[in-house]
Amino acid sequence: MSGILVALGGNALQRSGGTGTWEEARTQMRATVGVLAEIAASGRELVIAHGNGPQIGALLRQNELGARDVPARPMDVLGAETQGQIGYLVQTELPPALRRVGVDRSVLTVISRTEVASNDPAFDHPTKPVGRFYSEEEARVLRKQQGWIMRYDGARGGWRRLVPSPRPIAWLEGPAVRRLLESGLGTRWVPVVAGGGGIPVVRREDGRYEGVEAVIDKDLGASLVARELGLDTFAVVTDVPGAAVSFGRPTERWLGEVTLGELEGHFARGEFAEGSMGPKVEAGLQFLRAGGRRFVITDIPSLARAVAGEAGTRVRLD
Amino acid sequence: MSGILVALGGNALQRSGGTGTWEEARTQMRATVGVLAEIAASGRELVIAHGNGPQIGALLRQNELGARDVPARPMDVLGAETQGQIGYLVQTELPPALRRVGVDRSVLTVISRTEVASNDPAFDHPTKPVGRFYSEEEARVLRKQQGWIMRYDGARGGWRRLVPSPRPIAWLEGPAVRRLLESGLGTRWVPVVAGGGGIPVVRREDGRYEGVEAVIDKDLGASLVARELGLDTFAVVTDVPGAAVSFGRPTERWLGEVTLGELEGHFARGEFAEGSMGPKVEAGLQFLRAGGRRFVITDIPSLARAVAGEAGTRVRLD
Repeated sequence: MSGILVALGGNALQRSGGTGTWEEARTQMRATVGVLAEIAASGRELVIAHGNGPQIGALLRQNELGARDVPARPMDVLGAETQGQIGYLVQTELPPALRRVGVDRSVLTVISRTEVASNDPAFDHPTKPVGRFYSEEEARVLRKQQGWIMRYDGARGGWRRLVPSPRPIAWLEGPAVRRLLESGLGTRWVPVVAGGGGIPVVRREDGRYEGVEAVIDKDLGASLVARELGLDTFAVVTDVPGAAVSFGRPTERWLGEVTLGELEGHFARGEFAEGSMGPKVEAGLQFLRAGGRRFVITDIPSLARAVAGEAGTRVRLD
Repeated sequence: MSGILVALGGNALQRSGGTGTWEEARTQMRATVGVLAEIAASGRELVIAHGNGPQIGALLRQNELGARDVPARPMDVLGAETQGQIGYLVQTELPPALRRVGVDRSVLTVISRTEVASNDPAFDHPTKPVGRFYSEEEARVLRKQQGWIMRYDGARGGWRRLVPSPRPIAWLEGPAVRRLLESGLGTRWVPVVAGGGGIPVVRREDGRYEGVEAVIDKDLGASLVARELGLDTFAVVTDVPGAAVSFGRPTERWLGEVTLGELEGHFARGEFAEGSMGPKVEAGLQFLRAGGRRFVITDIPSLARAVAGEAGTRVRLD
């Protein structure tokens, strides 16, 4: 399908160093939707995925602070809530931008679950910090009472909870959304899907899917969506205009147009940081190996030019 | 369309007198999905709407208790979060029940906004209590600092915030969902829509929709969905097996099959309590006057028989 998946993260949703108010989220989203509308105006199918790190962090914190009166909800449920919250934000802010460029499409948010393997090795080695920082004493109590895995973050002087980050293997709502797109409605609506990589669920032996306390990398989840929908372009939007090799060293070099082989080489040599640029590049590699045609990593200001092959880090097969 | 809208409320989502844990919500939903699957097994289109009163109350309380660290989110955003939360619950629990009766349909939750008129008289006369009970001193402070309208509830000995309950006039995602259903996919998926009556939004002069601090009656919102989708049956599921006249008096009489004229008469005479059975009956009357064919009010145990015309309060035009 001649369509594009845009995976929004970072600045698209929350100003770094911001206060995390809803007003601020709206302001950020308003600065983001213009370029999304521009892409839609080109007549291509547009699908939006997004991160939810700061948002789920806020809900986890409310869970704690409100525990006296309100039973805490598990992480999968909080993930569903952030999908509702951020989807609603896109549904509110994108349509006026679409109208300004004369595009008549409905924005629909579909609550999305992503299957992970119950025997994913990540479950034995939680690596993803979530929620706030704790004192050593608090960390001891949480470890004991909640069974949480805690890690000390020296740079920021506190303990944080670690949860597993298993690999996404199936987007459960994917087949239904794909049927909808294929029914000829692809350019009639803009689906917002797989927020936060999708709500992580495992398939039990009886066939039931059950939520788990985990975090799916949002770009790996988005890559799965792009493949499931057969879209030809996958754009990862982040806080920097592209990916770099020798990042932070004197030999640092920003990547423009690269071949799939070059990107694979850089990735194999460990050029991209784990938990940061690493999964973004990996998400793109998965997409391209599965038949995707174009992959870009860029920021909001450069997105339209990156999709046109004029900015950002980009890999084209055609 | 030969389809049915089921509006879930009360016991379908939370046990009365329960503790409000997620485990409890799952248990309640598991007791609900069997009859929904039975309806789907009849081959009819099935669309699900639901309330969100206790859920939005819990989020409002967390907003308060977490205010030290986490900026409070406005009510429209909390409404979107409850749609994600409850939609996810239905998406998790309904498919196993569908499989048990051999039905292959995807359950998709669509975040839904409902337009209300910015000049709706309800905005001048808030009537809907939300959130927890406050002391007189707290109420004084909230009135002053937040501008909240507060009302004393003598029976329960505390003050509560009142918000407006404007009338729903348009379901913004309705046309898109209708197109999807009409594209022949109606019996391939079960949409979960308009949770809590839909997120209340007003249309500004520049054409933008903006969320408001209000609560839409979930049954009036569901009625709008049933009309927009052209479904022929609308079922309001509540905690009692039907509606009654002279409710609570010695002459109390439960209504079985009634004509539209009879129901209109009872409604006009004020037989149904405001904020309780009143809006349910009104929602049904709106649906039937707009071309709907069957309307039932019943509880979960009686739902299948009520839809078959054998239980509950029911109005048929055919």
